[in-house]
Amino acid sequence: MGKLSVVGIGPGDLQSMTGRASRALEEAELIAGYTVYIDLLRPYFPEKEFYSTGMTGELARCRYCLERAAEGRKVALVCSGDAGIYGMAGLVLELAEQESSLPEIEIVPGVTAASSGAALLGAPLGHDFCVISLSDRLTDWNQIEKRLRCAAEGDFALCLYNPASRARRDCLARACAVLLESKDPQTVCGIARNIGRQGESFRVLSLAELQKTEADMFTTVFVGSSRSRKCGGRMVTPRGYRMLEEGL
Amino acid sequence: MGKLSVVGIGPGDLQSMTGRASRALEEAELIAGYTVYIDLLRPYFPEKEFYSTGMTGELARCRYCLERAAEGRKVALVCSGDAGIYGMAGLVLELAEQESSLPEIEIVPGVTAASSGAALLGAPLGHDFCVISLSDRLTDWNQIEKRLRCAAEGDFALCLYNPASRARRDCLARACAVLLESKDPQTVCGIARNIGRQGESFRVLSLAELQKTEADMFTTVFVGSSRSRKCGGRMVTPRGYRMLEEGL
Repeated sequence: MGKLSVVGIGPGDLQSMTGRASRALEEAELIAGYTVYIDLLRPYFPEKEFYSTGMTGELARCRYCLERAAEGRKVALVCSGDAGIYGMAGLVLELAEQESSLPEIEIVPGVTAASSGAALLGAPLGHDFCVISLSDRLTDWNQIEKRLRCAAEGDFALCLYNPASRARRDCLARACAVLLESKDPQTVCGIARNIGRQGESFRVLSLAELQKTEADMFTTVFVGSSRSRKCGGRMVTPRGYRMLEEGL
Repeated sequence: MGKLSVVGIGPGDLQSMTGRASRALEEAELIAGYTVYIDLLRPYFPEKEFYSTGMTGELARCRYCLERAAEGRKVALVCSGDAGIYGMAGLVLELAEQESSLPEIEIVPGVTAASSGAALLGAPLGHDFCVISLSDRLTDWNQIEKRLRCAAEGDFALCLYNPASRARRDCLARACAVLLESKDPQTVCGIARNIGRQGESFRVLSLAELQKTEADMFTTVFVGSSRSRKCGGRMVTPRGYRMLEEGL
């Protein structure tokens, strides 16, 4: 009986993987994923078979995994961060729905960039927040703008995924312009780069400064609520414990 | 030199902890946290010193940890799920800001209920989403309602934390009523219970059904966007890969 595990591996270093995720990789005969993550894992599992496709190969990758698992093999399909948050879990379940003979499908959650990037910066998502991808490959840019406006209107903290790609250099600046329609230019923001990898770094800055900042595809962006603040060089969105005690 | 690690331990079973989180607990001399989670960990670390406070003891707990670490001890302050998302990381950083002599502070991220609950249900957070706590202990209920309305207006998928407590039995029903002002009663929703623990379960249901459902403090609730759907008995919010291919 075959099995397909869709595995969130966290930011990329083995230490940030959960025990369940490690075990799913150890038990798999075939490990599949996006080229960049497969290259990260290959040295740790020299005896495994690997299958990788590039940035736009998601459908082919998921179908390949479902087919191999239906043949009776144990397959792990890896996703950076979490298996479900902008990961492959949804597409696998949608494709599986069309098949008559199905392998067992297991979703193994992982630490998404909203959590791992936040830990670097401090606690930018300590209260209610929205997660929005700025990639307009699968989503109309008008819908992205609409969601940015609603997030600002609700005074949520924000975590922005995919703030740039080779083809889209200006979408972070455009997103900041939308947020600046209603948010204070001094709103505390943060960026986290290369989380869990070589060159890991973070920076706390204002929304006005963020608008002028270049991001790349290894950057995760955080935008504060009106209550977010800089705290010992880091970014914190308080939940309100201190205010409760101090009667503020 | 003392050190305080604020550690997200995931849903509660050791297998869902990251390698970094396990190591932080192993290296600590003192492990502190909310009573329920300390009782979960105690059997696995019989040689450690433990310190726990109840549900409203967050400030005392964080201060105690900072003081012991400032004395030179290695302390791990555990949070269920992630260290930052409704966790103690922010409060620790805020309290530390007021101190003159500080230990090293490290934030270790973990798998939050938005990811672990989603993995049980399928992939309810496969596209842009909001995370909102329904607890009005630290947040005015009017602000919670406002955020629910903004999330509905932006057609986000939603993950709701703290849908009930002993004192507040009706806040999930009230939140659903707010969402039903603009969302379709047939919107696909899901609940995940006792994630990673004995009695783990999930259920996919409509927003109208969710409104009539009792939740407890071990329940995490998911509300779909207009595109979320039931898929092989599970809940999926598609990102759009299939629509891209099929030209929809």
